[in-house]
Amino acid sequence: MPAPAQFLDFVDKSKDAFIQRLSDAVEIPSISGDPKHREDVFKMAAFLESQLQAYGVETKSVPLGSQNIDGEELTLPPAILGRIGHDKNKKTVLIYGHFDVQPAELSDGWTNPPFKLTRDDATGRLYGRGSSDDKGPVLGWINVLEAHHKLGLALPVNLRFCLEGMEESGSEGLDEFILAEVKKGRDSWFDGVDCICISDNYWLNNRTPCLTYGLRGLTYLKLTVSGPGKDLHSGVFGRMVHEPMTDLIAIMSKLVDPSGKILIPGVDEMVPGPTPEEKAIYEKLDYSIADVEDSAGGKVALSADKAAVLMGRMRSPSLSLHGIEGAFYGQGAKTVIPAKVSGKFSIRLVPPMTPDNVNPLVIKYIQAEFAKLGSKNKLVIEDLHGGKPWVENHKHWSYEAAKRATEVRTFHPNSPLALIYKQTPDLTREGGSIPVTLTFAEALGVNVLLLPMGRGDDGAHSTNEKLDISNFIEGTKLLGTYLYEVSQA
Amino acid sequence: MPAPAQFLDFVDKSKDAFIQRLSDAVEIPSISGDPKHREDVFKMAAFLESQLQAYGVETKSVPLGSQNIDGEELTLPPAILGRIGHDKNKKTVLIYGHFDVQPAELSDGWTNPPFKLTRDDATGRLYGRGSSDDKGPVLGWINVLEAHHKLGLALPVNLRFCLEGMEESGSEGLDEFILAEVKKGRDSWFDGVDCICISDNYWLNNRTPCLTYGLRGLTYLKLTVSGPGKDLHSGVFGRMVHEPMTDLIAIMSKLVDPSGKILIPGVDEMVPGPTPEEKAIYEKLDYSIADVEDSAGGKVALSADKAAVLMGRMRSPSLSLHGIEGAFYGQGAKTVIPAKVSGKFSIRLVPPMTPDNVNPLVIKYIQAEFAKLGSKNKLVIEDLHGGKPWVENHKHWSYEAAKRATEVRTFHPNSPLALIYKQTPDLTREGGSIPVTLTFAEALGVNVLLLPMGRGDDGAHSTNEKLDISNFIEGTKLLGTYLYEVSQA
Ligand SMILES: [Zn+2]
Ligand SMILES: [Zn+2]
Ligand SMILES: [Zn+2]
Ligand SMILES: [Zn+2]
Repeated sequence: MPAPAQFLDFVDKSKDAFIQRLSDAVEIPSISGDPKHREDVFKMAAFLESQLQAYGVETKSVPLGSQNIDGEELTLPPAILGRIGHDKNKKTVLIYGHFDVQPAELSDGWTNPPFKLTRDDATGRLYGRGSSDDKGPVLGWINVLEAHHKLGLALPVNLRFCLEGMEESGSEGLDEFILAEVKKGRDSWFDGVDCICISDNYWLNNRTPCLTYGLRGLTYLKLTVSGPGKDLHSGVFGRMVHEPMTDLIAIMSKLVDPSGKILIPGVDEMVPGPTPEEKAIYEKLDYSIADVEDSAGGKVALSADKAAVLMGRMRSPSLSLHGIEGAFYGQGAKTVIPAKVSGKFSIRLVPPMTPDNVNPLVIKYIQAEFAKLGSKNKLVIEDLHGGKPWVENHKHWSYEAAKRATEVRTFHPNSPLALIYKQTPDLTREGGSIPVTLTFAEALGVNVLLLPMGRGDDGAHSTNEKLDISNFIEGTKLLGTYLYEVSQA
Repeated sequence: MPAPAQFLDFVDKSKDAFIQRLSDAVEIPSISGDPKHREDVFKMAAFLESQLQAYGVETKSVPLGSQNIDGEELTLPPAILGRIGHDKNKKTVLIYGHFDVQPAELSDGWTNPPFKLTRDDATGRLYGRGSSDDKGPVLGWINVLEAHHKLGLALPVNLRFCLEGMEESGSEGLDEFILAEVKKGRDSWFDGVDCICISDNYWLNNRTPCLTYGLRGLTYLKLTVSGPGKDLHSGVFGRMVHEPMTDLIAIMSKLVDPSGKILIPGVDEMVPGPTPEEKAIYEKLDYSIADVEDSAGGKVALSADKAAVLMGRMRSPSLSLHGIEGAFYGQGAKTVIPAKVSGKFSIRLVPPMTPDNVNPLVIKYIQAEFAKLGSKNKLVIEDLHGGKPWVENHKHWSYEAAKRATEVRTFHPNSPLALIYKQTPDLTREGGSIPVTLTFAEALGVNVLLLPMGRGDDGAHSTNEKLDISNFIEGTKLLGTYLYEVSQA
């Protein structure tokens, strides 16, 4: 069922008002990672709660306890729950989003102050921290609510909201809350949810909307090699002692080869190759090697085959060597033999890989390789953190609804933007992780759809983060239309 | 010819006065590496110049120009030249030493304020920055001058001095000065020099005096691998692009193996194995694997064979991996793919190795290995700095004189310290470098002897640097006695 024309019309006519609301939201520097801004995260929570209430949503602000930062006890921002609609004949959609943002300073290289929304009508862009990650998408839902409220239209589905303020800082407290809430059964605010929709990722490129059905997991490990009791001078001790850096570099060189192949036996092998049907998804994606290299800023793609490169990111594990702690890292030429060095690396995981089945292979291999070195130094392997990968059934009705909403939406014929969305969305998997996705999927046992609003070049977490005005406005229409399509699924 | 008893007597009786002079010197924080202390280096130069003058030495303070530090032009401390004696029938000995010191702060972990000489009679130690490196040894020569001046004794040789104030900061300006001075021929302050004696290194252990006849050279290289235009997120780009860290670690792992063997073809092979006579020197050294491991602070010696371990330091090249610039080096778990990383490593050189004959082998090998990786990243190899090794003829009369001075010195029979020196000195080579040694050796074409005053555990450049009172006093006697032995050589 297409969305009613009056909804689409309302969205078009509210463009300036919607942008003003995003501007108000961006001006609250709700940086969850900076204790000095914790008050602002609370302020942002209150802002959203009052918006939800204004458009008829019942809300609840859920305290999530406190965290300890450098010995200081800091109250966590609340999760904001919302519910509207209790019609048993309608589907119930749970919306997740987050209202905290990454740090940003003008001095990081921003062209304009990051906490002031800068509208550039020449390029059609809205610059500001959180514009795309994730205030824009969250306000997209508020826009949908406002339209229906002001037009006196009933929503086509029951909606539930779960908005958090610690996503950029490990979602502290949220998993525990979700699991506890789900246990309440009929009393849970998540009771009766049929599917989940999260708008917190990006199109693969700057042209084609996409639906995302997978995220990689992660295992992050630290290898520490130690031996001497203190840093040594290479003039005095060079070729007298086993040097920890020599051993560490030898081990790190045995983890991954320059083509990206993981050298730990059994790891790459855990992942079955793509079926022809799956391979076809990657062949069809609107993406090119030039897109990869443009976004990486260098001609360094691992292959000239688009599908191979995309599968590397979306359906393959990857091992990256991040750096070394404890060795000389400055400019210049210090002749030190560091006494204790730690190599950091991580492996992105895809099903059926999990930290639990991958880590033992990694640890066994590294210990065996270290033993072969014949060094008198000591090796310690630590697991710093990890998370499981997630892959969703993209043939589920929620995905079908989102696909239809992207393909067939009845734009006003005179809108120049209509062409953007009148197309089949890309079906993507992300190389990174949004851990709450897996928590919801497992706790509620329902389908989760990632339905991004922003483009691939939005620069979430970077300087000059932006959201295109067209993505904000058309994206609002898409979110609303998705609900209508779900109602018919 | 042994030194006259009245000289030895004078030294013993002057112990407190000599320590007081060292105390006055240590109180001048002549840190050459810190512009805030540049005035103190000048003050220290003036202090020494007046001491030399007081004992009859003609002096000259030589300006060495200026250096640019962070855009600020800073005048270099002068070199202090001295000369006493113009007897054509006597040998002429040139003494080099330095009066600048390494930085030191109480907060670095010093037990006592570093710029106050702390005398601990229980352990017989004098603690303070510069006590051993190199104010103690320089004042040892001043003590010898004072004794002869006050006793009205003629010195057995003509003496020349060259004392500098930038040794801890690359000896800026000194090489150029030495070369220019030597060119003056008969007008040079170095005219007629028969041998050079430098007291600026340490015994191999804490028990046995030594004569040092070799220093390793150095070539310090930086390998930079770059490709992406900016740091990338491993979730987004992992297994899509060639990662600079993977390539760099692969190359760094091919330079040296955990046993210390250098993997660059032709490098280890440049150094011929030891002759039986040379091997005997190492077998005889008063040193054990326990000494190595005590000073390294860990049981990490490369071999259980003492001679093999000592040859590793003294007569073998060594390759140390120092660290990586541009990669994540902090604590925690950042999932970054760094865009540009630079590995730093150095090779200590022994004859016939020089940076000029070693670097081409290193560069050719690394370029070939990098090509094998098949990476689209770029590699740049930079030569950060280097210096040639030095090995002296230890059968020269100057070494023979120093050996006799150490072996047969007529102590007062009732001195409990007599036993320390009544032995054949160890004949050592140092693993590090004192670049001025080579400059003097090449510019003057005469034998250079390194005759250390301090012990192996003095901790030059470390916290709690110390000089044993016995080393200061007996060392003063040794320096004086050496001059008498030289006069007979
Ligand atoms: Zn986000
Ligand atoms: Zn984010
Ligand atoms: Zn020194
Ligand atoms: Zn020094």
